[in-house]
Amino acid sequence: VTTVWLDGALVTPAGAALSIDDPGVRWGEGLFETMRAEDGRVPLLGRHLDRLEASARALGLAPMPGRAEMEEAVAAVLAAAGRSPARVRLTATPRPTLLVEATPEEPLPPGPPGVRAIALRGAWLPGNRIAEHKSLSNLALRDAARRAARAGADHALLLDESGRLGEAAIASVFCAVDGEAVTAPARGLLPGVSREIVAEALGAREEALEEAAWRGAREIVVVNSLRGAAAVVEVDGAPVGDGRPGPMARRAHEALREALAA
Amino acid sequence: VTTVWLDGALVTPAGAALSIDDPGVRWGEGLFETMRAEDGRVPLLGRHLDRLEASARALGLAPMPGRAEMEEAVAAVLAAAGRSPARVRLTATPRPTLLVEATPEEPLPPGPPGVRAIALRGAWLPGNRIAEHKSLSNLALRDAARRAARAGADHALLLDESGRLGEAAIASVFCAVDGEAVTAPARGLLPGVSREIVAEALGAREEALEEAAWRGAREIVVVNSLRGAAAVVEVDGAPVGDGRPGPMARRAHEALREALAA
Repeated sequence: VTTVWLDGALVTPAGAALSIDDPGVRWGEGLFETMRAEDGRVPLLGRHLDRLEASARALGLAPMPGRAEMEEAVAAVLAAAGRSPARVRLTATPRPTLLVEATPEEPLPPGPPGVRAIALRGAWLPGNRIAEHKSLSNLALRDAARRAARAGADHALLLDESGRLGEAAIASVFCAVDGEAVTAPARGLLPGVSREIVAEALGAREEALEEAAWRGAREIVVVNSLRGAAAVVEVDGAPVGDGRPGPMARRAHEALREALAA
Repeated sequence: VTTVWLDGALVTPAGAALSIDDPGVRWGEGLFETMRAEDGRVPLLGRHLDRLEASARALGLAPMPGRAEMEEAVAAVLAAAGRSPARVRLTATPRPTLLVEATPEEPLPPGPPGVRAIALRGAWLPGNRIAEHKSLSNLALRDAARRAARAGADHALLLDESGRLGEAAIASVFCAVDGEAVTAPARGLLPGVSREIVAEALGAREEALEEAAWRGAREIVVVNSLRGAAAVVEVDGAPVGDGRPGPMARRAHEALREALAA
């Protein structure tokens, strides 16, 4: 059961549609955020909306929905959807269009689950500044996720042409190397809300690790602000570290649990 | 006045909308073609649909509208729109959704007009395979076109990080250098229908020209299958060649006029 707000009111999900003249529909010209709601609110709403507004300014998208309107819509959807855990997606386009959807979501697991990944060389383009925004032009990440699913994996790790590790589809990535937490600089990848929280919690440094370095990492952890952290226990069929969730994954998960319950 | 076909029937333009669950709306996951109609038909329809179907296969998009359905929809829209020149946009998503729109368009000019361009370094990413498809995830090209418009220019020339010339937003580009026509190889850029026609007519060779080479070209010509060819007579405020449309622009325009009238 999805609860839907579109342009000023709650609407019936089955009939919710955007005009063919909407720039979001016609050109993928628009932004979205996917957020976790707990107990009838989105604890990280402010950070997500900050990012969305920064992207709108950087891309020159206007007119966009206002801040108060976005906050009001999220509150209205959650008032209707109830207090159970929910995934909230907010979509904004420069028509302006504002769409907010809430869908029931599993509780956060108590610890980080183990997941499998494949690596896609050339799928991270560090010079791609458009990829630094969470936009409706999302075909590249969808393509990467589809290739992972076809290979029976949960995530795709996106590498540059040389094999350096950038991000995942659809998550940020941290590696444990020589006792340090390492994540790629936010060039050509999404400066995720969960990436920021986990980087601070782990005291991570920024480096795009060479292929030998990340494949030899003791842990690889993927994080997003909907599902928390997961431990990548296998990449391209080979185990990561000892093949089980490790201490860095647990610390990342705990940091996100705290932030998402605040 | 726009004539619109959506999912099996002609519809009222003002009410035409796509579901929020459509992958095209949600993720920019879909393809489109913009085509020229003359005398009630689209002369290059077969080539445009070939390209769209090849992209759908390459990206694993399914289920997509069938070929016969796309041809029927274009015919129905043009039967309703009449025989004047029109811009026909066909949009297809893996819901499947099929949208065809026809809008009146100016006649092709008798010769290539002169246009102005700006150059955007880093906006062409040769490793970006997603950019080889005409997809609804079009934010990068829209952003480039918007930057050109803000600078008072008609087109944006997209350069790689080193200043080599790739394509334009939204057109393919040919340069006259040492008496030869040169265009970039189709890596990280759209293998345009008009690019193919003009490359054959001019006997063009493929090379990504260094900045000094293309800035010193005798002519720079932009082509698309809606408006034919135009001569770029100024880039970043500096004249190209003698600052007027030249023989290569005229030959390119003539080749497209013939193809579009066939």
